[in-house]
Parts: sequence; C-alpha cells; structure tokens
Amino acid sequence: MHTGSPQSTERIVAFQGERGSYSEEAALSYFGLKIGFLPCRTLRLVFEAVESGRADAGMVPVENSLEGAVAETYDLLEASSLSVCGEFNLRVRHCLITNLGVKIEDVKRVYSHPQALAQCRRFLEKIGVDPIPYYDTAGSAYLLKKEGLKDAAAIASRRAAEIYNLQILAESIEDSPNNYTRFLLIGKADHEPTGKDKTSLVFTTKHLPGALYAALGVFAKRMINLTKIESRPTKQRPWEYNFFVDLEGHRLDVNVSEALEELKSYTLSSKILGSYPKAEQ
Amino acid sequence: MHTGSPQSTERIVAFQGERGSYSEEAALSYFGLKIGFLPCRTLRLVFEAVESGRADAGMVPVENSLEGAVAETYDLLEASSLSVCGEFNLRVRHCLITNLGVKIEDVKRVYSHPQALAQCRRFLEKIGVDPIPYYDTAGSAYLLKKEGLKDAAAIASRRAAEIYNLQILAESIEDSPNNYTRFLLIGKADHEPTGKDKTSLVFTTKHLPGALYAALGVFAKRMINLTKIESRPTKQRPWEYNFFVDLEGHRLDVNVSEALEELKSYTLSSKILGSYPKAEQ
Repeated sequence: MHTGSPQSTERIVAFQGERGSYSEEAALSYFGLKIGFLPCRTLRLVFEAVESGRADAGMVPVENSLEGAVAETYDLLEASSLSVCGEFNLRVRHCLITNLGVKIEDVKRVYSHPQALAQCRRFLEKIGVDPIPYYDTAGSAYLLKKEGLKDAAAIASRRAAEIYNLQILAESIEDSPNNYTRFLLIGKADHEPTGKDKTSLVFTTKHLPGALYAALGVFAKRMINLTKIESRPTKQRPWEYNFFVDLEGHRLDVNVSEALEELKSYTLSSKILGSYPKAEQ
Repeated sequence: MHTGSPQSTERIVAFQGERGSYSEEAALSYFGLKIGFLPCRTLRLVFEAVESGRADAGMVPVENSLEGAVAETYDLLEASSLSVCGEFNLRVRHCLITNLGVKIEDVKRVYSHPQALAQCRRFLEKIGVDPIPYYDTAGSAYLLKKEGLKDAAAIASRRAAEIYNLQILAESIEDSPNNYTRFLLIGKADHEPTGKDKTSLVFTTKHLPGALYAALGVFAKRMINLTKIESRPTKQRPWEYNFFVDLEGHRLDVNVSEALEELKSYTLSSKILGSYPKAEQ
C-alpha cells in the first residue's frame, strides 16, 4: 500500500531552467496550480528525471514560431524511450528586467537565453546594449539578483521578475507579436484517443531519389494532414537525416495506423514518438 | 580605366568571425591564398558587405553534420537578393587553446561559439569545466589573449592558435569524427553549369493536406535527387513554414528547369537561391 507524503499524489513536472522560466509557465498553464515542479539545468536532465521516475512528466520546448526548432529536444526525443503525451502553445511575452532602482540608461549589457536575445534583437539594437547569452531566461534574472548587478538587465518573463523581486523596465519587447513557443509534454506512455489528436514520429529514408516523397505519400493518399516536418542530422554519417513529422490523427485511428504500417516499406527505420490531444492554438 | 591599388584585382571574401575562424579556413581552402578577407561580426553583416559591393563574395556556414542547420543563414538567404554560387565542406577539428604556460588543471571555464561547445560536450564534461557561449570560435581565442586569462580556455581551430600565438592543450576534441560544416559561397550571381551542379531553392506551399508532397513530386517524377530539405518558420504567421530544398542539377538543365516551372503551380511563393558546382565529399 502506498504511504507517501501528503504531496505524493501530485504530479511532478520536470522542466529546463530556473523557477519562473517559460517552461514552468507552460506547465502551470497546462496542469493548473496543483502540480509539483522539478527545475533541471539542461534538457537532457529533464528526460533523465522522467526516465528515472523522479518526475512524472517533463515539459520541453520543441519549436518557436520565430526562431524555429529546438534542435536538442528533437535529438533527445529520437534517442529516448519516452513518449509524447501532450502539447501546449505559449504566447511568449518578454520583459526587460533589472534590480530595483536601475534606470534604462545604466544598462550596458543584457543577459538571457540565446533564443530570447534573438527574439528581441531589434529592441536591443535600439537601446544599444550588448547581448550576453546565458543558459536560461529566468536564470539570468536570478543572476542579476544574486550578483546585485546595477549595470545589467535580463530578458525573462513577468513571472520571473515577480519570483525574484526585480523590476520590469519594459514589457512585450519581442520584435514580433507572432511569438509562440510550442511545448511537448513527455512521459512514460502517450495519451489515449480524444478525437482531436496529433501524432509525432521520426524516420530515416532509404538512400534513393524520391525516398522522402514516397514516404510522405503514405499520408497524402489518405488525406492525413502533416502539420510539421523537421530534418535533423543522424550523426551516424554526414548529410544523412532523421525526418520528424507531426500529423493530425491518433496512431490508433484506422487511417493513421494503416499509413504508419505502410511507411515501414519506404524507410530504413521509423519510430512513433506518441499520440496526444492537439493544443488549442 | 581602372587605377586601383595593386590588391584591387584580388577578390575580397567576407565571413563571420575573427581571423582564424572556420569560415576563413573554408574561404582559404576554396580560393587558395590569393584573396582578400573581410571579417564581420555577424552573418547579417556578411550579407550586407556583399550586397554593398565592399566584398565580392561571402562564405557562410549553412549546416553542420552534427548540430544541423545554421538557422540564421537560411533566414538571411530567404530575405536577400544574393545568389548561392558555391559550396564547400570543411572537416572541423577543434582544439583546446590557452595562454602560454596554462595547465589543463588550471582551466575553470571554456569559451567558444555555442555550436563548438555543443560539438565538444562530452570532452568538456570529462574535464569538468563550465562552457561559456561566445559569439565566435576564433574570437574566444583572441579574448584569452587580450584579457591575459590564466584560468580559461577557448575552443577554436589550430589556425586561430597560431594567429594569436596561443598554445594547444588538446587537439581533435570534438565528440564525433563525423564533424563537417557545409559552407555556401554567396555573391551577386550564381555559377554557370559545370555538369556536376546543385541548386538551392526556397518555397512556401498552399495550405492544403498533401501540399508539400505535391511540391516534392515535381522532382521525384523526374528522378531529381534531393540532398536536403529544411523547414523554417515564415515569421508571418505561427506554424507556417518556408521549405529550403537542395537538389542535384543546374537550374538551366532541362529537367530541373521544367520541374522548377511546374513547382509554381503547387506553391504560394518560390525563389531559386542559385546553382553552383557540387562540393567534393
């Protein structure tokens, strides 16, 4: 019989970055307040936490609508035994954050995750400060606090400013309002069918002209909509690729299941990463 | 009549990073010693230098065989009026570089470009040092020199160590020997046919199931081999993509020319980035 602590029935969700990161925000939005959190320094550690059972699920960024794929997440998904069991689209609003009392003209450099710096490139050029890459958005806010920096700022979420008791000098500083990050929820099993699902898979094609075309044909002829295709190096041999595909439908739907079976005749290897309820945009 | 300096007949090649960068090495290998160099701080400045005529060509990294696409290069190619006129594959051998007299046990942190740090991840974990992202490999070697750092190292090329008179503590520290970076040469026009060519293009598909499949079909039915497909966000609307395709053949070859013409009926927009001699290996 299970005799854990009072918290033991809560789900623990692992994510990359410090408290106040966008991944934590995505997990909160997905599950509501009744979850436990496990911040991890790297994406690899998020996967390891779920594999080992220390966390019940992981919330990992896979794609940003401006900057594109999070390559490391794709590579970890390919290598892992975990399944994708959910997705969530987060509207990313960046804030320029400093210690209390710092004025914008005092700011000489700005710390943040390289993707966040890239998303605010024009804003940073306008105020004329040096971008300094750091491992995490919320971590860069915490760095300001810990070191008491008076000539530096961080780019992070409103939530990060609140958690670390810092001030917000400017809000929504991202160059484009079309700034969404798509997160995947990973766990030991995928999700049962709901009727509005997506399926993620990865495959490598045979070394023949038209091999990718033939592979995609198994979906096209069944009118299965592909929402995303991403190629990543296999790392086994230069210029050979894994293709990651997201499609509409559940792997247990008849047409998807038939397509996935037929796909095997056009691929050297293929793996279903999981089926899960489609996010509301 | 042209009355320039004695160097005026040399081609000037722009590249991102400091002297001693891998891009400079690629340019040297491609052209030999008889060229002028224009180091630029960012990839965007490389494109601007060629557009303005300050440089005759630019050598830009587009893809690494382990880390994948250089996203910024794809986005700049899509937006630019320049053409791709050549390609070169460089075998990347990273060195651990320090100031003279520094021992490996003194090294607490290692500076380099994020892709180089990623390519040496296992080596860095083994020696237990903190990776610090910096804008350029050769630039991180120069940083050590300029600041006289005795507790830090850089990851850069042998050539960078020689240029800045630094010592090499370890060589070929990359995690995998399959470490190649593919560079594209960009200029105001592409290359005439040589019989062994490639063509790069970018297109967006109509919003219909099977649209990408139909677009790829124009190449498959002519047995035109695709060597690469890469998707990048359009940035106009979330979750819509530009597809970058490399194929074997020159845009003036009859079958390629017909395929590119037919492609227009399956795409919302398409642009030929250029045809150029295929790199060896």
